[in-house]
Amino acid sequence: MEYETPLFFHVMEYADRADRDVIDMVSGNPDWEPPEALRDGLREYADLEPDRFEYPPSDGLRELREEIAARRGVDAEQVIVTNGTGEANYLAMARALERGRGDEIILTDPVYPYYPGKTTMLGGTQRFVETDEDGQLDPAVVREAASEETGAIVVNTPNNPTGAVYPEETMEALVDVAEANDAILVSDEVYDHFDLSGTFSSALRYESDHCIVTNGFSKSMASTGLRVGYAVFPEHLIENARSRHMLVNVATTRPGQYAALRSLRETNPAYHEANRELLRDRIAAFTDALDAAGAEYTTPEGSFYVMARFEGFDGSLENVERLIDEAGVAGMPGEAFGDSRGDWFRFALVTPQVTEAASRLAAFFE
Amino acid sequence: MEYETPLFFHVMEYADRADRDVIDMVSGNPDWEPPEALRDGLREYADLEPDRFEYPPSDGLRELREEIAARRGVDAEQVIVTNGTGEANYLAMARALERGRGDEIILTDPVYPYYPGKTTMLGGTQRFVETDEDGQLDPAVVREAASEETGAIVVNTPNNPTGAVYPEETMEALVDVAEANDAILVSDEVYDHFDLSGTFSSALRYESDHCIVTNGFSKSMASTGLRVGYAVFPEHLIENARSRHMLVNVATTRPGQYAALRSLRETNPAYHEANRELLRDRIAAFTDALDAAGAEYTTPEGSFYVMARFEGFDGSLENVERLIDEAGVAGMPGEAFGDSRGDWFRFALVTPQVTEAASRLAAFFE
Repeated sequence: MEYETPLFFHVMEYADRADRDVIDMVSGNPDWEPPEALRDGLREYADLEPDRFEYPPSDGLRELREEIAARRGVDAEQVIVTNGTGEANYLAMARALERGRGDEIILTDPVYPYYPGKTTMLGGTQRFVETDEDGQLDPAVVREAASEETGAIVVNTPNNPTGAVYPEETMEALVDVAEANDAILVSDEVYDHFDLSGTFSSALRYESDHCIVTNGFSKSMASTGLRVGYAVFPEHLIENARSRHMLVNVATTRPGQYAALRSLRETNPAYHEANRELLRDRIAAFTDALDAAGAEYTTPEGSFYVMARFEGFDGSLENVERLIDEAGVAGMPGEAFGDSRGDWFRFALVTPQVTEAASRLAAFFE
Repeated sequence: MEYETPLFFHVMEYADRADRDVIDMVSGNPDWEPPEALRDGLREYADLEPDRFEYPPSDGLRELREEIAARRGVDAEQVIVTNGTGEANYLAMARALERGRGDEIILTDPVYPYYPGKTTMLGGTQRFVETDEDGQLDPAVVREAASEETGAIVVNTPNNPTGAVYPEETMEALVDVAEANDAILVSDEVYDHFDLSGTFSSALRYESDHCIVTNGFSKSMASTGLRVGYAVFPEHLIENARSRHMLVNVATTRPGQYAALRSLRETNPAYHEANRELLRDRIAAFTDALDAAGAEYTTPEGSFYVMARFEGFDGSLENVERLIDEAGVAGMPGEAFGDSRGDWFRFALVTPQVTEAASRLAAFFE
């Protein structure tokens, strides 16, 4: 079986090997401080009794599941704590395909490349629906694409790479399309703390038995290396997902769960607001400099990413490598996210050097 | 798709709910101290700069892969750091099946129940070969069972549940059977630090391109909750396994990898010898008391487990629950490990109360 390897790690390695200083805007790795309570949780864990180094329950520490459930307004029995949102999406998509209703997975174009990768690995078929220029998804397009072949519809809001935040009407209609076709809506909401528009709407609000919501602490707690995420399943779908989680990973890392729990309990909303403010400032600085460079770009409503286009210079891997070597700025090729963004680059605003990066780009394209 | 859920968590939950004190001998969770260097590693990690909270390389921290490679006499490029040995086995078995050579997986009876569970989940077919009374595997039996249908042969040495350690001749012959049938030998060696016989022989010594070796730090560092393990692949098989690891888990928890690395570097061999000595003492105490109870039992050459049989009381889940409720001792039903051990129970010697446990069993069967 062959399946696509997401390009992130390739580009990061290329940038690491470059013979000059490179501003890393490749991956969605927050560069700001994780919450102090997360650090405290790791310190505290290091001193616990030996029995706290033993397997946690396979589906997660009970207190963490209860804390998540209380915050999301669901029952703790619906929650599996996973090895990051990555595993949560894997479990959700596998569960949707295992139902045997349809092996087609509807994905957006542009798309976060792990979704088509997982689809193929799981034996499903990719079917893409286009979003508009701003990354918004018209539910009517999804409705037309959906059929009895549809196993799942996978969406991400706030969106990577477009920065779109889907409004309530979109989410409601997507739930309806999933239900009408007996398919599963998988809603990846890992950027929920980075809604800059105030229009974010979680799929959980519809309490649909055709919806699985995934999330994690990688972005909201600036700790992508921690690997703690979760999936919220409708009760009738969770049993097989628990088994798969157990058979693949046994359980999710316990020090990470412990630290995430402490951080959830103790981190002030001001922490998240300060990070959003930082992002807003970076977006303004980066897009101002892109204006000066005569580039076309998107202004994100949420998440960390700006997509930019430079005339006569398409968003290929080869051009990404040229920008690394010749401009000292590493982004992702738009073509990695789908055919529709082949002329674009994606820049993750997770470096204090966004203004410098935009200046380097301006100088390169001058 | 339906696949078996290992019974461990069910039995542990049953024991937790019991209305009395229960000695937990269910799961292979070491109860002794993790190395101090592992605790130090977590403490040190908690104070690192924010960039050390970002994604580690998908296949593992380079220094950890190099440390593992140096210790195992392989190239770091052959190593993927996984979410425990559980994920390592999942990647290895998936890789073997993906080659499309055969969808049958040869397993021993008795077997560690996650292997048949993973086989079914991955769409493979289980084929069991019997071991002898001591848990030793006759390679001639495997040779007879192997065919062009064979995708993999999965073994575990030192063995859970039998305590057998396969000698060099067995391992050499198993590698040969795998090569002769163009199948993959998956050798799970997670109990290698608990070889009490001095006869352990790693499959790595044969440098076969038909062999994947899995291991981890859960047992040797008394930290099953850490979730750090690894798989060593022949170079021609690793690429797709890297992709699967990335698509399922993105990466393995970074604080755990950091702590495992520090522990590998700084933990004295005396730590491991002391744990083996503790186990030897517990085995002697437990089996003496079983003698007094008139039970039949195995004396392990390695790993943590003693299997015991009591006349007229078969190793069913129902009887495990009776022992929990009426004797206050929780073990695993022999039937969970395969048809051949349906009369037996497995007791994990990971509690200081092994003598008390054996006395309780003696009193119950009096």
